[in-house]
Amino acid sequence: MISQPFGELEVGQVAVSSGRTMTESDVVNFCMLTGNWLELHSNVEHAKGSLYGQRLVQGSLVFSVVNAMIPFDSSILAAFYGCDKLRFLRPTFIGDTLWAKVEIIRLKDHDDKHGIVTLKLESLNQKDETNLRCEFSLLIRKNRLDQPGEPPIVRAARQQSKELTI
Amino acid sequence: MISQPFGELEVGQVAVSSGRTMTESDVVNFCMLTGNWLELHSNVEHAKGSLYGQRLVQGSLVFSVVNAMIPFDSSILAAFYGCDKLRFLRPTFIGDTLWAKVEIIRLKDHDDKHGIVTLKLESLNQKDETNLRCEFSLLIRKNRLDQPGEPPIVRAARQQSKELTI
Repeated sequence: MISQPFGELEVGQVAVSSGRTMTESDVVNFCMLTGNWLELHSNVEHAKGSLYGQRLVQGSLVFSVVNAMIPFDSSILAAFYGCDKLRFLRPTFIGDTLWAKVEIIRLKDHDDKHGIVTLKLESLNQKDETNLRCEFSLLIRKNRLDQPGEPPIVRAARQQSKELTI
Repeated sequence: MISQPFGELEVGQVAVSSGRTMTESDVVNFCMLTGNWLELHSNVEHAKGSLYGQRLVQGSLVFSVVNAMIPFDSSILAAFYGCDKLRFLRPTFIGDTLWAKVEIIRLKDHDDKHGIVTLKLESLNQKDETNLRCEFSLLIRKNRLDQPGEPPIVRAARQQSKELTI
Protein backbone atom coordinates (compact mmCIF):
# COMPACT_ATOMS: atom_id res chain seq x y z
CA MET A 1 0.00 0.00 0.00
CA ILE A 2 1.35 3.41 -0.99
CA SER A 3 -0.18 5.63 1.65
CA GLN A 4 2.17 8.55 2.31
CA PRO A 5 1.35 12.06 1.07
CA PHE A 6 3.69 13.98 -1.26
CA GLY A 7 6.49 15.28 0.93
CA GLU A 8 6.86 11.98 2.76
CA LEU A 9 7.55 9.85 -0.35
CA GLU A 10 11.22 9.39 -1.36
CA VAL A 11 13.02 8.52 -4.57
CA GLY A 12 14.21 4.91 -4.41
CA GLN A 13 11.26 3.51 -2.42
CA VAL A 14 10.17 0.15 -3.92
CA ALA A 15 6.97 -1.91 -3.65
CA VAL A 16 6.10 -5.33 -5.11
CA SER A 17 2.55 -6.63 -5.50
CA SER A 18 1.12 -10.09 -5.07
CA GLY A 19 0.75 -12.10 -8.30
CA ARG A 20 -2.17 -12.49 -10.71
CA THR A 21 -2.67 -14.99 -13.52
CA MET A 22 -3.99 -13.55 -16.78
CA THR A 23 -6.81 -15.87 -17.79
CA GLU A 24 -8.85 -16.49 -20.91
CA SER A 25 -11.78 -14.94 -19.02
CA ASP A 26 -9.81 -11.72 -18.58
CA VAL A 27 -9.05 -11.59 -22.32
CA VAL A 28 -12.68 -12.17 -23.32
CA ASN A 29 -14.02 -9.71 -20.72
CA PHE A 30 -11.61 -7.07 -22.00
CA CYS A 31 -12.80 -7.67 -25.59
CA MET A 32 -16.35 -7.13 -24.33
CA LEU A 33 -15.47 -3.99 -22.38
CA THR A 34 -13.45 -2.26 -25.11
CA GLY A 35 -15.42 -3.55 -28.08
CA ASN A 36 -12.12 -4.52 -29.72
CA TRP A 37 -12.41 -8.10 -31.00
CA LEU A 38 -9.17 -8.10 -32.96
CA GLU A 39 -8.51 -11.69 -34.07
CA LEU A 40 -5.06 -11.60 -32.47
CA HIS A 41 -6.91 -11.80 -29.13
CA SER A 42 -10.17 -13.52 -30.00
CA ASN A 43 -9.61 -16.06 -32.80
CA VAL A 44 -7.56 -19.14 -31.87
CA GLU A 45 -7.21 -20.27 -35.50
CA HIS A 46 -6.01 -16.85 -36.69
CA ALA A 47 -3.58 -16.54 -33.79
CA LYS A 48 -1.86 -19.82 -34.73
CA GLY A 49 -0.60 -18.08 -37.87
CA SER A 50 0.30 -14.79 -36.15
CA LEU A 51 3.66 -13.53 -34.86
CA TYR A 52 3.61 -15.52 -31.61
CA GLY A 53 1.54 -18.52 -32.72
CA GLN A 54 -1.14 -18.06 -30.07
CA ARG A 55 -3.57 -15.48 -28.73
CA LEU A 56 -1.95 -12.49 -27.02
CA VAL A 57 -3.30 -10.94 -23.85
CA GLN A 58 -4.13 -7.38 -24.90
CA GLY A 59 -1.35 -4.90 -24.14
CA SER A 60 -3.83 -2.38 -22.75
CA LEU A 61 -5.18 -5.08 -20.42
CA VAL A 62 -1.71 -5.99 -19.15
CA PHE A 63 -1.00 -2.30 -18.57
CA SER A 64 -4.36 -1.75 -16.82
CA VAL A 65 -4.06 -4.79 -14.55
CA VAL A 66 -0.43 -4.27 -13.63
CA ASN A 67 -0.83 -0.61 -12.70
CA ALA A 68 -3.89 -1.55 -10.64
CA MET A 69 -1.95 -4.19 -8.68
CA ILE A 70 -0.22 -1.52 -6.58
CA PRO A 71 -2.76 -0.37 -3.99
CA PHE A 72 -2.96 3.33 -3.11
CA ASP A 73 -4.61 4.96 -0.14
CA SER A 74 -7.62 6.96 -1.33
CA SER A 75 -6.68 9.81 1.00
CA ILE A 76 -3.51 10.70 -0.94
CA LEU A 77 -4.19 9.77 -4.61
CA ALA A 78 -5.82 12.63 -6.57
CA ALA A 79 -5.57 11.44 -10.19
CA PHE A 80 -3.65 9.44 -12.82
CA TYR A 81 -1.39 12.09 -14.40
CA GLY A 82 0.22 10.25 -17.32
CA CYS A 83 2.60 7.61 -18.59
CA ASP A 84 5.84 7.65 -20.58
CA LYS A 85 8.08 5.11 -22.26
CA LEU A 86 5.56 2.25 -22.07
CA ARG A 87 7.09 -0.78 -23.77
CA PHE A 88 5.93 -4.37 -24.08
CA LEU A 89 9.26 -6.19 -23.74
CA ARG A 90 7.77 -9.69 -23.98
CA PRO A 91 4.36 -10.95 -25.12
CA THR A 92 1.86 -11.97 -22.44
CA PHE A 93 -0.03 -15.21 -23.07
CA ILE A 94 -3.14 -16.68 -21.46
CA GLY A 95 -1.95 -18.46 -18.30
CA ASP A 96 0.99 -16.13 -17.60
CA THR A 97 1.25 -14.85 -14.05
CA LEU A 98 2.30 -11.25 -13.41
CA TRP A 99 3.70 -9.33 -10.45
CA ALA A 100 3.98 -5.54 -10.41
CA LYS A 101 7.12 -3.79 -9.16
CA VAL A 102 7.27 -0.04 -8.66
CA GLU A 103 10.13 2.25 -7.71
CA ILE A 104 9.80 5.99 -7.14
CA ILE A 105 12.14 7.64 -9.65
CA ARG A 106 10.98 11.29 -9.63
CA LEU A 107 9.15 13.71 -7.36
CA LYS A 108 8.02 17.01 -8.85
CA ASP A 109 6.08 19.85 -7.27
CA HIS A 110 2.82 20.61 -9.13
CA ASP A 111 0.65 23.14 -7.28
CA ASP A 112 -0.10 24.16 -3.70
CA LYS A 113 -2.03 20.96 -3.05
CA HIS A 114 -0.32 18.31 -5.22
CA GLY A 115 2.95 16.85 -6.40
CA ILE A 116 3.62 14.50 -9.32
CA VAL A 117 5.13 11.16 -8.31
CA THR A 118 6.72 9.17 -11.13
CA LEU A 119 7.16 5.43 -10.65
CA LYS A 120 9.19 3.05 -12.74
CA LEU A 121 6.49 0.38 -13.15
CA GLU A 122 7.55 -3.08 -14.27
CA SER A 123 5.57 -6.25 -14.84
CA LEU A 124 7.50 -9.43 -13.95
CA ASN A 125 6.35 -12.91 -14.98
CA GLN A 126 6.73 -16.57 -13.95
CA LYS A 127 9.39 -17.08 -16.66
CA ASP A 128 11.64 -14.61 -14.78
CA GLU A 129 11.14 -11.97 -17.47
CA THR A 130 10.24 -8.29 -17.36
CA ASN A 131 7.37 -8.15 -19.83
CA LEU A 132 6.32 -4.48 -19.47
CA ARG A 133 8.10 -1.34 -18.37
CA CYS A 134 6.93 2.27 -18.16
CA GLU A 135 7.19 5.51 -16.23
CA PHE A 136 3.86 5.95 -14.50
CA SER A 137 2.95 9.34 -13.02
CA LEU A 138 0.33 10.13 -10.41
CA LEU A 139 -0.99 13.34 -8.89
CA ILE A 140 -0.48 12.88 -5.14
CA ARG A 141 -1.91 15.13 -2.42
CA LYS A 142 0.38 17.07 -0.07
CA ASN A 143 -2.18 16.75 2.72
CA ARG A 144 -4.44 13.79 3.26
CA LEU A 145 -8.11 13.99 2.44
CA ASP A 146 -9.86 13.40 5.74
CA GLN A 147 -12.06 10.42 4.71
CA PRO A 148 -14.58 12.56 2.83
CA GLY A 149 -18.16 11.41 2.69
CA GLU A 150 -18.00 9.15 5.71
CA PRO A 151 -21.10 9.60 7.88
CA PRO A 152 -20.72 9.86 11.70
CA ILE A 153 -21.59 6.17 12.19
CA VAL A 154 -18.60 5.15 9.99
CA ARG A 155 -16.30 7.74 11.58
CA ALA A 156 -17.13 6.41 15.02
CA ALA A 157 -16.38 2.88 13.86
CA ARG A 158 -13.07 4.07 12.37
CA GLN A 159 -12.10 5.62 15.71
CA GLN A 160 -12.30 2.13 17.18
CA SER A 161 -10.11 0.61 14.47
CA LYS A 162 -6.69 1.71 15.69
CA GLU A 163 -4.95 -1.63 15.34
CA LEU A 164 -6.95 -3.73 12.90
CA THR A 165 -6.94 -1.98 9.52
CA ILE A 166 -8.56 -3.16 6.30
CA MET B 1 -10.31 0.95 -40.62
CA ILE B 2 -6.52 1.08 -40.86
CA SER B 3 -5.82 -1.70 -43.31
CA GLN B 4 -2.66 -0.86 -45.27
CA PRO B 5 0.61 -2.69 -44.62
CA PHE B 6 3.78 -0.84 -43.59
CA GLY B 7 5.15 0.71 -46.77
CA GLU B 8 1.73 1.94 -47.87
CA LEU B 9 1.02 4.04 -44.77
CA GLU B 10 2.06 7.71 -44.85
CA VAL B 11 2.84 10.34 -42.26
CA GLY B 12 -0.07 12.78 -42.00
CA GLN B 13 -2.88 10.25 -42.62
CA VAL B 14 -5.77 10.89 -40.21
CA ALA B 15 -8.69 8.77 -39.00
CA VAL B 16 -11.58 9.61 -36.65
CA SER B 17 -13.74 7.01 -34.92
CA SER B 18 -17.43 6.98 -34.13
CA GLY B 19 -18.32 8.09 -30.58
CA ARG B 20 -18.84 6.14 -27.37
CA THR B 21 -20.37 7.25 -24.09
CA MET B 22 -18.48 6.21 -20.96
CA THR B 23 -21.14 4.78 -18.66
CA GLU B 24 -21.37 3.86 -14.99
CA SER B 25 -21.47 0.22 -16.15
CA ASP B 26 -18.10 0.66 -17.86
CA VAL B 27 -16.57 2.08 -14.67
CA VAL B 28 -17.92 -0.74 -12.49
CA ASN B 29 -16.94 -3.45 -15.00
CA PHE B 30 -13.42 -2.03 -15.12
CA CYS B 31 -13.20 -2.09 -11.30
CA MET B 32 -14.22 -5.77 -11.48
CA LEU B 33 -11.74 -6.60 -14.22
CA THR B 34 -8.71 -4.87 -12.70
CA GLY B 35 -9.57 -5.51 -9.06
CA ASN B 36 -8.89 -1.83 -8.36
CA TRP B 37 -11.79 -0.44 -6.33
CA LEU B 38 -10.17 2.89 -5.52
CA GLU B 39 -12.83 5.10 -3.94
CA LEU B 40 -12.17 7.83 -6.50
CA HIS B 41 -13.97 5.55 -8.99
CA SER B 42 -16.27 3.46 -6.81
CA ASN B 43 -17.48 5.55 -3.84
CA VAL B 44 -19.91 8.37 -4.68
CA GLU B 45 -19.68 9.89 -1.19
CA HIS B 46 -15.87 9.90 -1.19
CA ALA B 47 -15.73 11.34 -4.70
CA LYS B 48 -17.84 14.36 -3.66
CA GLY B 49 -14.90 15.50 -1.53
CA SER B 50 -12.22 14.65 -4.10
CA LEU B 51 -10.44 16.91 -6.61
CA TYR B 52 -13.26 16.94 -9.18
CA GLY B 53 -16.24 16.47 -6.85
CA GLN B 54 -17.50 13.33 -8.57
CA ARG B 55 -16.35 9.86 -9.62
CA LEU B 56 -13.70 9.80 -12.34
CA VAL B 57 -13.72 7.31 -15.18
CA GLN B 58 -10.45 5.42 -14.70
CA GLY B 59 -7.59 6.79 -16.80
CA SER B 60 -6.55 3.29 -17.86
CA LEU B 61 -10.12 2.63 -19.03
CA VAL B 62 -10.25 5.82 -21.08
CA PHE B 63 -6.89 4.91 -22.63
CA SER B 64 -8.00 1.32 -23.32
CA VAL B 65 -11.33 2.28 -24.88
CA VAL B 66 -10.01 5.14 -26.97
CA ASN B 67 -7.14 3.18 -28.48
CA ALA B 68 -9.59 0.35 -29.24
CA MET B 69 -11.97 2.70 -31.10
CA ILE B 70 -9.71 2.77 -34.15
CA PRO B 71 -10.27 -0.51 -35.99
CA PHE B 72 -7.29 -2.31 -37.52
CA ASP B 73 -7.25 -5.04 -40.12
CA SER B 74 -6.02 -8.27 -38.50
CA SER B 75 -3.91 -9.03 -41.54
CA ILE B 76 -1.50 -6.10 -40.94
CA LEU B 77 -1.41 -5.58 -37.15
CA ALA B 78 1.26 -7.74 -35.42
CA ALA B 79 1.38 -6.28 -31.88
CA PHE B 80 1.02 -3.22 -29.62
CA TYR B 81 4.58 -1.89 -29.42
CA GLY B 82 4.35 0.87 -26.81
CA CYS B 83 3.14 4.32 -25.82
CA ASP B 84 4.81 7.63 -25.00
CA LYS B 85 3.75 10.98 -23.60
CA LEU B 86 0.34 9.79 -22.39
CA ARG B 87 -1.38 12.70 -20.64
CA PHE B 88 -4.87 13.11 -19.23
CA LEU B 89 -5.56 16.72 -20.19
CA ARG B 90 -9.08 16.80 -18.77
CA PRO B 91 -10.93 14.46 -16.38
CA THR B 92 -13.47 12.05 -17.87
CA PHE B 93 -16.77 11.73 -16.00
CA ILE B 94 -19.56 9.17 -16.22
CA GLY B 95 -21.77 10.25 -19.13
CA ASP B 96 -18.99 11.84 -21.19
CA THR B 97 -18.85 10.82 -24.85
CA LEU B 98 -15.50 10.24 -26.52
CA TRP B 99 -14.25 10.12 -30.11
CA ALA B 100 -10.77 8.91 -31.05
CA LYS B 101 -8.62 10.79 -33.54
CA VAL B 102 -5.36 9.36 -34.86
CA GLU B 103 -2.70 10.85 -37.10
CA ILE B 104 0.36 8.98 -38.33
CA ILE B 105 3.36 10.98 -37.09
CA ARG B 106 6.25 8.52 -37.51
CA LEU B 107 7.16 5.44 -39.58
CA LYS B 108 10.23 3.47 -38.54
CA ASP B 109 11.69 0.30 -40.00
CA HIS B 110 11.92 -2.51 -37.43
CA ASP B 111 12.94 -5.85 -39.01
CA ASP B 112 12.49 -7.67 -42.32
CA LYS B 113 8.81 -8.30 -41.64
CA HIS B 114 7.65 -5.28 -39.59
CA GLY B 115 7.74 -1.53 -39.20
CA ILE B 116 6.74 0.61 -36.21
CA VAL B 117 3.91 3.03 -36.89
CA THR B 118 3.49 5.82 -34.35
CA LEU B 119 0.13 7.56 -34.15
CA LYS B 120 -0.72 10.75 -32.33
CA LEU B 121 -3.83 9.45 -30.55
CA GLU B 122 -6.26 11.97 -29.09
CA SER B 123 -9.54 11.56 -27.29
CA LEU B 124 -12.06 14.32 -28.01
CA ASN B 125 -15.24 14.85 -25.97
CA GLN B 126 -18.70 16.39 -26.25
CA LYS B 127 -17.48 19.52 -24.47
CA ASP B 128 -15.17 20.21 -27.44
CA GLU B 129 -12.11 19.32 -25.36
CA THR B 130 -9.13 17.06 -25.96
CA ASN B 131 -9.14 14.96 -22.81
CA LEU B 132 -6.29 12.53 -23.60
CA ARG B 133 -3.24 12.66 -25.84
CA CYS B 134 -0.42 10.19 -26.44
CA GLU B 135 1.95 8.75 -29.01
CA PHE B 136 0.76 5.22 -29.65
CA SER B 137 3.06 2.78 -31.47
CA LEU B 138 2.13 -0.43 -33.26
CA LEU B 139 4.13 -3.18 -34.93
CA ILE B 140 2.70 -3.33 -38.46
CA ARG B 141 3.42 -6.06 -41.02
CA LYS B 142 5.15 -5.26 -44.30
CA ASN B 143 3.19 -8.03 -46.03
CA ARG B 144 -0.33 -9.03 -45.21
CA LEU B 145 -1.05 -12.23 -43.35
CA ASP B 146 -3.16 -14.29 -45.73
CA GLN B 147 -6.20 -14.89 -43.44
CA PRO B 148 -4.46 -17.58 -41.38
CA GLY B 149 -6.57 -20.31 -39.89
CA GLU B 150 -9.49 -19.93 -42.26
CA PRO B 151 -10.73 -23.35 -43.40
CA PRO B 152 -11.60 -23.91 -47.10
CA ILE B 153 -15.32 -23.36 -46.51
CA VAL B 154 -14.61 -19.83 -45.18
CA ARG B 155 -12.07 -19.11 -47.93
CA ALA B 156 -14.60 -20.06 -50.57
CA ALA B 157 -17.17 -17.78 -48.98
CA ARG B 158 -14.60 -14.94 -48.87
CA GLN B 159 -13.94 -15.38 -52.61
CA GLN B 160 -17.59 -14.52 -53.17
CA SER B 161 -17.43 -11.39 -51.01
CA LYS B 162 -15.75 -9.03 -53.43
CA GLU B 163 -18.06 -6.09 -52.94
CA LEU B 164 -19.81 -6.54 -49.61
CA THR B 165 -17.20 -6.49 -46.84
CA ILE B 166 -17.77 -6.79 -43.11
